[in-house]
Amino acid sequence: MRTAPRLPLATPAAVEVLTRILTQGPIARVEIARKTGLSQAAVTKAVAPLVEAGYVVDAPSARDDTVIGRPVSPLSVVESSVAAIGIKVTPGELFGVVTDLRANIRIARSKTLPDTSPETALDLLAILVGELLAAVETGDSPLSTGTTALAGVGVSVSGDVDATAGVVRHSAFMGWRDLPLGALLHERINLPVVVTNDVRALTVAEHWFGIGVNANSFAIVTIGSGIGCGLYLNGDVVEGAHGVAGEIGHLPLAPENLVCTCGRHGCVETVASSDAILARVREDTGRAELDLAGAIDLAHAGDEQARAAFDRAGQVIGSALAAMVNLAGPELVVIAGEGVADYDLYDHRIRAAFAQHAFGAAADCELTIRSHTFDDWARGAAATVIRSYIRTEPPF
Amino acid sequence: MRTAPRLPLATPAAVEVLTRILTQGPIARVEIARKTGLSQAAVTKAVAPLVEAGYVVDAPSARDDTVIGRPVSPLSVVESSVAAIGIKVTPGELFGVVTDLRANIRIARSKTLPDTSPETALDLLAILVGELLAAVETGDSPLSTGTTALAGVGVSVSGDVDATAGVVRHSAFMGWRDLPLGALLHERINLPVVVTNDVRALTVAEHWFGIGVNANSFAIVTIGSGIGCGLYLNGDVVEGAHGVAGEIGHLPLAPENLVCTCGRHGCVETVASSDAILARVREDTGRAELDLAGAIDLAHAGDEQARAAFDRAGQVIGSALAAMVNLAGPELVVIAGEGVADYDLYDHRIRAAFAQHAFGAAADCELTIRSHTFDDWARGAAATVIRSYIRTEPPF
Ligand SMILES: [Zn+2]
Ligand SMILES: [Zn+2]
Repeated sequence: MRTAPRLPLATPAAVEVLTRILTQGPIARVEIARKTGLSQAAVTKAVAPLVEAGYVVDAPSARDDTVIGRPVSPLSVVESSVAAIGIKVTPGELFGVVTDLRANIRIARSKTLPDTSPETALDLLAILVGELLAAVETGDSPLSTGTTALAGVGVSVSGDVDATAGVVRHSAFMGWRDLPLGALLHERINLPVVVTNDVRALTVAEHWFGIGVNANSFAIVTIGSGIGCGLYLNGDVVEGAHGVAGEIGHLPLAPENLVCTCGRHGCVETVASSDAILARVREDTGRAELDLAGAIDLAHAGDEQARAAFDRAGQVIGSALAAMVNLAGPELVVIAGEGVADYDLYDHRIRAAFAQHAFGAAADCELTIRSHTFDDWARGAAATVIRSYIRTEPPF
Repeated sequence: MRTAPRLPLATPAAVEVLTRILTQGPIARVEIARKTGLSQAAVTKAVAPLVEAGYVVDAPSARDDTVIGRPVSPLSVVESSVAAIGIKVTPGELFGVVTDLRANIRIARSKTLPDTSPETALDLLAILVGELLAAVETGDSPLSTGTTALAGVGVSVSGDVDATAGVVRHSAFMGWRDLPLGALLHERINLPVVVTNDVRALTVAEHWFGIGVNANSFAIVTIGSGIGCGLYLNGDVVEGAHGVAGEIGHLPLAPENLVCTCGRHGCVETVASSDAILARVREDTGRAELDLAGAIDLAHAGDEQARAAFDRAGQVIGSALAAMVNLAGPELVVIAGEGVADYDLYDHRIRAAFAQHAFGAAADCELTIRSHTFDDWARGAAATVIRSYIRTEPPF
């Protein structure tokens, strides 16, 4: 698959027009003009080279055929014109996907990571990229090596990531500090690489291709081995001036004597991460052999100590949600749980604690729960690549 | 003073152009074009009716006279062309100002509030507006009844305010619930009225006329009888989808057994508001007659119990700042204290707690302290009026 050339985007207005088509298409030129404040002539001028180069198409949909009168001629992106690779790095496994231009997952592969050393991770990242590209070659997806161009490779890692420099400043789960992952991976694969915080990447995907399409603001909170939060406010993802934002898992809402994986005291994750819950159940029941599934089974069976551990986690997560909503005021919160199966164990407690601490009308903020897979994380990394590709400063 | 007519702003681009001149002037047309992405012709077209109507002027500054070559012809707003009234409501007093178009305070007056009933407050608000207008008449300021037009009256109140509807949903300090302050005041004074949360108003003032001019994002945290926070992220003030945002004083970071003025448990204000500090010092020293100044004197004199109360407040404020920065990631935080004089009592403790809980690079976020008066609050309300006046949807 060839590397995608620079898009024919001559002005900031053209970037805005393509973004509208990508995220809201099929959409008529007149509608783009209305939403962007551009003239219809300006929209038409921006669209022409995109159509000519094969990224955008005039595609009357079935819906539009029923419109009586002049054709509305809605514009859509050609989904298969551009692909992106996204990879989520976890301590035990790499999860990779190839998506099309609208971040639809077309191919998914994973790779066991025998250790978390940067060398091992880089070797296996390069191998996984090779396998994903080979899967496109075999033609099992709507993508084709002949007509699809690759925008790049996105790698998402939990922790403190300097996305601009492509450096993982600190990832507690991986044990990485100041690792120039972007540059090192680029050396090996010679493709454009974007490195990003995993939750931030998920937020980008939701902003352009998910809940953000219909909400003016939102937060997405991920619950699992870590607890993270992505925020979309005032028309964009909150990136943090210093590269840090949405660190809901490290708010000091738990007892001060508990030490977090990040080294700080009293972080939310010290009682609410899946590891913390499991550790507590093991300790309180004296059953050191339990795994998370076992702890969940115990709690479902009504074991009081197991239930108490989940309750405690739910209480702290609910308080953290209230803290976040009191500060940032999103329209809605989506809770994306890796282990959404066990969410029923503390759902009630989370909502009760949220209601207890939400300030005034913040209590009206809707909390919805959604199941969440590792492929969703990888898709986020791909969406970040697509965004970088479209926003990369054109020569104006 | 006549009420200001609608501004000659024919397009969203014209609103953007005027905003740039207002907040960044003197500024050349070419510079506005560069910053907004508009053509220079579009800028010139937007500016012409503003110059003709007397809101904007071509004003070569001394700085520009030294430029060799073609004159850069920078644009400035005519500060005295528009005035705004801003009033901060507190339980004991109303603080009012008249500002010019750039939110410079030109006149300041206050009025004792004998009780906090809505009737008393409305009566005295109307009287204060009358006195402020009369002060313009006497000509003691650069404003003139002949050439200055009044954009409106802004009233800022602490608590949960629905600014769109002009309703104070709940102000614990005033004891108000669901009070349609905007409509009731408008009935009495027949001028445009804007009602806003006090910290939000302060943030608007900083965004357009203060720290926001040179920062891509910021938080302003107010410390005093309440603890509030205004956020500026992604190009605008964070308003909260449900009207609530920045409620740092009600994060559940204090002991759960303490009950807040808002009725919730464990809010930051239960240990960190000036009232909470005073109550603690009184209790621990057994000196019920102490006032806040007395408590501060005691702490300065080295009294251990008094110092402990300030330390405890500093610890919780620092944790709350870290929680806010971990979530929102502002470039810098300004701490505006009503009692900044006593800030030295817990400055160290605030910074230590912040450093303890700030996540990764969030610790690089700069905390600066600034003294803060009631006139600053009132100025914020005036700035909100100016913003409403300029952004009010023109007929496009
Ligand atoms: Zn932590
Ligand atoms: Zn409270």
